[in-house]
Amino acid sequence: MMTPEKSLPESTLLQAAQSRMPVVLQDFLRQQNPSASRLSEAMLYAVTNGGKRVRPALAYGAAQALGAKAEVAEPAALAVELIHCYSLVHDDLPCMDDDDLRRGKPTTHKAFDEATALLAGDTLQALAFLSLHESTLDASRIRQQVAVLSRAAVDMAVGQALDIEAEGKQLDLVALEHVHRHKTGALIRASVAMGAIAAGATAAQLAALDVYADKLGLAFQVHDDVLDVIGDTAKIGKRAGSDIAREKSTYPALLGLEAAQGLAVKLHDEAIAALEPLGAAADPLRELADFLVDRDH
Amino acid sequence: MMTPEKSLPESTLLQAAQSRMPVVLQDFLRQQNPSASRLSEAMLYAVTNGGKRVRPALAYGAAQALGAKAEVAEPAALAVELIHCYSLVHDDLPCMDDDDLRRGKPTTHKAFDEATALLAGDTLQALAFLSLHESTLDASRIRQQVAVLSRAAVDMAVGQALDIEAEGKQLDLVALEHVHRHKTGALIRASVAMGAIAAGATAAQLAALDVYADKLGLAFQVHDDVLDVIGDTAKIGKRAGSDIAREKSTYPALLGLEAAQGLAVKLHDEAIAALEPLGAAADPLRELADFLVDRDH
Repeated sequence: MMTPEKSLPESTLLQAAQSRMPVVLQDFLRQQNPSASRLSEAMLYAVTNGGKRVRPALAYGAAQALGAKAEVAEPAALAVELIHCYSLVHDDLPCMDDDDLRRGKPTTHKAFDEATALLAGDTLQALAFLSLHESTLDASRIRQQVAVLSRAAVDMAVGQALDIEAEGKQLDLVALEHVHRHKTGALIRASVAMGAIAAGATAAQLAALDVYADKLGLAFQVHDDVLDVIGDTAKIGKRAGSDIAREKSTYPALLGLEAAQGLAVKLHDEAIAALEPLGAAADPLRELADFLVDRDH
Repeated sequence: MMTPEKSLPESTLLQAAQSRMPVVLQDFLRQQNPSASRLSEAMLYAVTNGGKRVRPALAYGAAQALGAKAEVAEPAALAVELIHCYSLVHDDLPCMDDDDLRRGKPTTHKAFDEATALLAGDTLQALAFLSLHESTLDASRIRQQVAVLSRAAVDMAVGQALDIEAEGKQLDLVALEHVHRHKTGALIRASVAMGAIAAGATAAQLAALDVYADKLGLAFQVHDDVLDVIGDTAKIGKRAGSDIAREKSTYPALLGLEAAQGLAVKLHDEAIAALEPLGAAADPLRELADFLVDRDH
């Protein structure tokens, strides 16, 4: 949608994250070896569900943009993905979105049971913080990462609560952005910040990357709303038009479809512009932004 | 029950924790000021539910036992209580214990709704880790506390899962201890360790305090099982005999009532013995153990 003059870009960051994360997640969960086998199975199921691994890709990319090796950001990538996976398990529960399918597979509470899914989510959140401790970074960087990740986890849950309160109401643009900045934006920003902290970012570098992450997060959400209107169920893994069916406020509903598409482009371009000071090392992050806002799946 | 020759001891640690914690918890939640008002209300409700504040008392007591001021352990006390409160909110949910009342008041999902209770628990867990970051301890002690607390949060959820798997089955003593060491013991040990870390404990001090916490945690659980048989509903805040109704394995069921009471005494005495190297500074912890295993409420 964004760049019709060129073919759909690939993202090396997403490819790397998609190949690394299943291994890293499984190794970490096995190494923790909790003795409750059904719970362990549910956690493994929840983390190996074919996710896009956008957040780990952002953590890797932020470290690389600062000249560090991607591996430096691996504990950060693991931690943000554990938080993301926990949130999906809880979001799917009957008292929340009550979804039976995620990416075409039964949700965790359907494949197991509600109590196990609840506990799997709870445990994955705790494991995210445990995983940070196990990195080889110095204590002050770990402390900073704990602060960033816990703040994001709080904001994400607050965003979910705001989203529930907003159902059936017509939000204005400011209120809708407020919901999304909490619900999805906070963890996307944290993913970039965690990778940057792992690489020893300066305050100026952190600030530039944070603008990138903030704009990208919103662009991603606007694009997701657009896909909900124009996409088909097979490609996006949920029922097309499901937001409308749930009476959720969306960007296309507020702005019209064309203006919403334009907003996604604008936010994408602002995200790219924020990377200017980082030079060519930030190319993988640019490529990722192109891919995420161009994506048709 | 333990010491019939003297009157019921008071615990200065519990008194301090019960007077400090409501203020500390409310101040912290208000300072975080999440913008979802219903969620904030649910969190405040969940943390000011008349809890005994045993875990904060242990954190304070461990710091004092090492010659530090109790205030050093306040962030630790806050963090462990946030984890405890989150676990109660989730344990009460319909898919778990499905309890309508806790300490005679509606449970959080009854006072609010299930989605809000789920998110309140999720947020309280994240806030526990955020609260650690906000202490004035040096980064290496905070890192150590994050490791201890996240490990305990994992073990606690594993214990819940083990407990669910065990329902309707007859566990032997080893298996029952395994469940309790995870479900309740892990956070009790973490509470003591977190307070001790705040006070700059040596490895030997940590080890002595950990034996105290481990024995006390088990003594507390055995005593709780005994109270479920002999206590009355008004005093213990749940239906007497409710464990039997749920076909849960208990110490009285496994050992007989008298032997279970004897085991509580033995564990209590082992807890006290472990404090020997710490001298008179550990008196408040001794007093707390006396109170907890003597308690009739």
